[in-house]
Amino acid sequence: MPQRKRASIGDSSHTPAFLFDLDGTLIDSVYQHVIAWREALEETGLSLAVWRIHRRIGMSGGLLVQALGREIGRKITKKQAQELQDRHAEVFKRYRGKIEPLPGAPELLAYLSKVNVLYAIATSGTPEGTDKVFQALGLRPEIPVITRRQVERAKPDPDLFLAAAASLNVSIAKAVVVGDSVWDLLAARRAGCLGIGLLSGGYGREELQEAGAYRVYQDPADLLLHLDEVGVRGTD
Amino acid sequence: MPQRKRASIGDSSHTPAFLFDLDGTLIDSVYQHVIAWREALEETGLSLAVWRIHRRIGMSGGLLVQALGREIGRKITKKQAQELQDRHAEVFKRYRGKIEPLPGAPELLAYLSKVNVLYAIATSGTPEGTDKVFQALGLRPEIPVITRRQVERAKPDPDLFLAAAASLNVSIAKAVVVGDSVWDLLAARRAGCLGIGLLSGGYGREELQEAGAYRVYQDPADLLLHLDEVGVRGTD
Repeated sequence: MPQRKRASIGDSSHTPAFLFDLDGTLIDSVYQHVIAWREALEETGLSLAVWRIHRRIGMSGGLLVQALGREIGRKITKKQAQELQDRHAEVFKRYRGKIEPLPGAPELLAYLSKVNVLYAIATSGTPEGTDKVFQALGLRPEIPVITRRQVERAKPDPDLFLAAAASLNVSIAKAVVVGDSVWDLLAARRAGCLGIGLLSGGYGREELQEAGAYRVYQDPADLLLHLDEVGVRGTD
Repeated sequence: MPQRKRASIGDSSHTPAFLFDLDGTLIDSVYQHVIAWREALEETGLSLAVWRIHRRIGMSGGLLVQALGREIGRKITKKQAQELQDRHAEVFKRYRGKIEPLPGAPELLAYLSKVNVLYAIATSGTPEGTDKVFQALGLRPEIPVITRRQVERAKPDPDLFLAAAASLNVSIAKAVVVGDSVWDLLAARRAGCLGIGLLSGGYGREELQEAGAYRVYQDPADLLLHLDEVGVRGTD
């Protein structure tokens, strides 16, 4: 497992470990999730403007449903929340086959592996149906993937990122969260680590900065081009 | 036509006329357009991250296709551009039936009519299939609707808004553009009038401010609550 090996290149005590969000950060799935939530809400007789759904993507499904309920001005029962989440998962299946890695995502992960920088994935999503996209990302089997199922609370609670750092056996203070949503960045701050924002989930630059991003890049390809700005030295 | 009548309430020489964008401003259709473009591109063998499509919505279809081509790094021929636009229109039909007015949009238009403030609609879209949503908006038949077909160049060129102001017989300098995208706000500046941004198309507040919005509200409902801030006096 070269990924885990502490090698000389790029793994000084100053090189951070990377904790990646998945949707909107490594894979281009945010807008399909948005539309799937919209359909699920509509089928349940609930109506909410689509941009408000967009701004809630990336938090835990349970929290998202509660937040949407608050915006509609209706209390959502536990049963309804579960039904909505089930319905969303069902509708999303229609889009799942077309989800692709974001530009540069496979290359970014391959490069980090090559220079022996540790990384893990931490997602508010569930593990169902992720095999194909992990394959497209070229995700090596030894890379830890922490999902909603493995923690008590998903983002913006810090649990997912804390668990991801623990899975790499690194201190959270040495980790950097990479995410596309304000929920990733708020969770990073609560966890006590730096956060890098990506525009590829459809948030604006300033929204991510206001949520605490210390750098913002367009997408994984842009982050790969600027890794030297966030503490990763090249091989030369 | 009470809409056109220059009445005493709300129609002093300081009361602006409103030129509304349609998609993302009065109706909740931006994300469905985004997904439809994504599908159209995919079917043509072109791949582009969805957030980049989102940030191009609201400009003319022709410009959008050229801009997307540039981002993909491919020259799109005129024929391909037309095919893409046709394909987008075809895919969008699947979503059109579910498009609803944004919260507060019918109420905002009804209020402006009530206090005799002039307004028109200026959209980069085409008029096909808009009947149902205009009905849902309660749009009175005397309200001018300027579409892509009626001008040489769509947004971010100023033509649509200039034509809309002309249709109301008001000076563009006395008009205020209301839009959800930076293209509306850039077109407003080129036309020489103020622009109000709405978050309901999924842009961030600062993106709209940077493009020149002098006020930003959440959606039509929020604008209706703050009309006094943009030069419309109430009835009391």
